[in-house]
Amino acid sequence: MKFVNGYFDWASTSLPDKKILENALKKSFDFSANPSSVHKKGIEAKTLLNNCRIRCAKILDVKEDTIIFTSGGTESNCIPIVSLLQRPSKGSIVISAIEHPAIREQANAMKNSGWRVNIAKANKDGIITPEAVVNAMDKDTALVCVMAVNNETGAIQPIEEISKAISESSNGRKRPKFHVDAVQSIGKTLINLNYNGIDTVAISAHKLYGPRGVGILYMKNKFEPFLKGGGQEYGLRSGTENIFGILALTECLEKYCNNEFVNANIKKMTNVCNDFINEVLKIKGTSIVPPCREKIENTNSFFSPYILQVAFQNIPGEVMVRALSEKGFYISTGSACSSKKQSRPILQAMQTPAEIALNSVRFSFSQDTTFEQTSALLDALKSICSLFN
Amino acid sequence: MKFVNGYFDWASTSLPDKKILENALKKSFDFSANPSSVHKKGIEAKTLLNNCRIRCAKILDVKEDTIIFTSGGTESNCIPIVSLLQRPSKGSIVISAIEHPAIREQANAMKNSGWRVNIAKANKDGIITPEAVVNAMDKDTALVCVMAVNNETGAIQPIEEISKAISESSNGRKRPKFHVDAVQSIGKTLINLNYNGIDTVAISAHKLYGPRGVGILYMKNKFEPFLKGGGQEYGLRSGTENIFGILALTECLEKYCNNEFVNANIKKMTNVCNDFINEVLKIKGTSIVPPCREKIENTNSFFSPYILQVAFQNIPGEVMVRALSEKGFYISTGSACSSKKQSRPILQAMQTPAEIALNSVRFSFSQDTTFEQTSALLDALKSICSLFN
Repeated sequence: MKFVNGYFDWASTSLPDKKILENALKKSFDFSANPSSVHKKGIEAKTLLNNCRIRCAKILDVKEDTIIFTSGGTESNCIPIVSLLQRPSKGSIVISAIEHPAIREQANAMKNSGWRVNIAKANKDGIITPEAVVNAMDKDTALVCVMAVNNETGAIQPIEEISKAISESSNGRKRPKFHVDAVQSIGKTLINLNYNGIDTVAISAHKLYGPRGVGILYMKNKFEPFLKGGGQEYGLRSGTENIFGILALTECLEKYCNNEFVNANIKKMTNVCNDFINEVLKIKGTSIVPPCREKIENTNSFFSPYILQVAFQNIPGEVMVRALSEKGFYISTGSACSSKKQSRPILQAMQTPAEIALNSVRFSFSQDTTFEQTSALLDALKSICSLFN
Repeated sequence: MKFVNGYFDWASTSLPDKKILENALKKSFDFSANPSSVHKKGIEAKTLLNNCRIRCAKILDVKEDTIIFTSGGTESNCIPIVSLLQRPSKGSIVISAIEHPAIREQANAMKNSGWRVNIAKANKDGIITPEAVVNAMDKDTALVCVMAVNNETGAIQPIEEISKAISESSNGRKRPKFHVDAVQSIGKTLINLNYNGIDTVAISAHKLYGPRGVGILYMKNKFEPFLKGGGQEYGLRSGTENIFGILALTECLEKYCNNEFVNANIKKMTNVCNDFINEVLKIKGTSIVPPCREKIENTNSFFSPYILQVAFQNIPGEVMVRALSEKGFYISTGSACSSKKQSRPILQAMQTPAEIALNSVRFSFSQDTTFEQTSALLDALKSICSLFN
C-alpha cells in the first residue's frame, strides 16, 4: 500500500507538497543573500521576502505588516506569551483547558516570573464557552489564549464569541490581549483573523503541506517582544529569514488556504468524516470522543471534519496506534508533541471517563482523503478490534 | 561576472551548497512523518533525526546527547540566556562588548526581569581578555557570554583562557555558565567545544553553506529551559523538528567542518587574506580595523582569515557598500543583523576613532575565495577610491 493511502496523521504533520517545496528551494537559490544586507543581492532577497508577506496577507485577508514569519507554530504561540515579560507589572494569563503544549507549557513557565495562569474550563463536548473564559479572567488578566480548533477532538471553538465576551467583560478596564492558536484551523475551517478583538494568531506551515521549521505569527498591532536579536520581522522575530521556508509557506497558503478551496473541501470532508463516524460506530463498543459527535446532523458545525477522536473498547490507544502501524496505517493518540506522556490532559479536561480516554486515538485527514482510503482503514480497524473483543 | 565571484559577504550568509540542500530535501520526503509520532513512519523520522545528531556530535567531537537542533544562531544564543528566568534568584549576566545583537539585545531584554547586564570590555584590538571578563563578573554572575570569533573584525577570542579565568575567579562560589557564540568560528577557525568550562555553544547552518532556519545549540549538561512546548530535543527546543534543515546541516558539518578541511583552508585563506591586506593598504588612506592587523606576521593567529574590516578614507561604509554593489561586488559594513542601525557598537567598543568607524566595511570570504576574485575586488576598490580622494 502506498504510504499516503494509510496516512491518517495529517494533524501531526501533513505530508509535504513536494512540487511546491522543490520549486521553492530552487527559487531560493536565486535569493541566497541575507535579506538584511544592503547591497543589491540583499535588497533582492528582502524584496522577495516582502512579496511573500504581501501574498500571505492577501490570502489571510489582513494587512501586510501584520505578518511575521517565524520558525513554526510553537514559536508563533510562544512570542505573544513571553512578550508579557516586557510589561512593568505582572498579572494573569488565561489559557483554555484544551490548549496545545506550546501554549500550556509556556504559560506555566511564566509562573516562575511571577505570572499567574488561570484555566478556562472546557465543557464535556470539548468546547470553551465565552462564559468559561470570562469566569477565568480577573482584573489583571493581560492575555487570553484559546485555540481555534482543538488538535485532538477537532472541536471548533467559538473564537468570535469569546473575543466579544472578553471585550464586554473588560468594560472600563484595559482589555486583555487575545491570542488564537490557529494551527489546526487555517486551511481547514473558516476563521476570520480580522475579527475585532483577535490580537495575535499562530499558523504553522507543516500542517499545510509546507515545510517544517516555518510559520506565521499574525499580529494586529505591533508590540514589544521579549525575544530579541538582529531585529528582523519588524523586531518581532530576530534571526536571518528562512527564504526557502517562507516561499514554500506562501505557495501553500495560496494553494490550500484560499476561501473557495477551503469551503469546497469542508463539504467534501464532512461527507468523508461523517461516513467514517457511521461506519466506525458499527464496530462493537466503539465511541466517538466527545460522544455528542455521534449525532452527526447536530454537531457538524462544531467539529472540524479533519480530526476525529475515537475510543475502541478494551484497546489502549497506544496499542491501537502500533497495531494499525503494523498494517500500514498511521495515526496518533493525541498531539504528537505530547506523545511521550501517557496522560491525556485534553480528554481529562472534558471529563472523559478514564477508560475511554485510555482507549482513544485520533484519526486526522487531508482534503485528499478518499472513501477508499477510509474504507481500507475501517477494514483494518475491524480486524484489530475482533482480536480484542 | 558570476554572482559568486563578486560575493564577499560570506559572514552575513554563505551561499548554499545547492547539491547538499537538494539532496536533503529529496531525502526528507521519505521521512515526512512527525518524529514525535509513535507509529512506524514517525519512528523512522526519529531515527533519522537521531542519526543526524550522532553525525553532528562526531564532527564536533562531543557526546550525541549534547546536540540540540534549533531554528538557527539567534535561537541557539537565546535559549541559554532566557533559561536564566527559571532560576529562583536573579543576578547578573556578563556579555562581552563585541557580542552579536542576538546576545546583546537578548541580554538587555533580561533587565526587565530583574537581571543586571555587565559588559566585559574589549581592548583596542577587539580582543576580550580573560581579565576583562573577570573584572565584569560579580558575586552573583550566573552566565558569561563571549563569542569565539567576532563577526565584524574577525578577532579570535581567547575562549579557553577566558573559560579558565571564569573557573578560577569563581573559586568557592558557584561557577557561572559560559556560553560561546561560535557562529563565525565553526568551520573556519579551530574551536574545542569539549574544553572544560564551556557550557553552551551556538552554531548556525547558513554560515556553513547550509539552509537558513536551522542551527545547533551544544549543551554540555542539560538545563531547564524557559521556552517550552512539546518537549522535543530533550525538552530544550520545542517544535516539530525540521528534518530537511537538520539533514542539510549535518551534511554541511561533515563536508566543511572536519578538522582536516578546516586546517587546510585556514592556511590557504590566510594567504588570500594577507595578500588582500597588503594590496588594499596600497590604496591611499586605507587602514585595517583594528590597525594591529596591518602587521600580518604578528597577528595571523589572532584573526580569522575569513573576515576583514577595512576603513577607506573619505568614503562612508554605506557608500562603499553601494558603490561596490553597483560594480557587482557584495559586502556589508558589519553585522547584517545591525544593518539598519547607523551606529557601530563593536568598533566603538574597540575605541576606533569615529571617522574610521564611519568609513569601515567588512569583507568576508569563503574557503573557495581565490586570488583572482580578490584581485578583481581590489581593482573595483581602487576605482571607487580614486573618485573620492
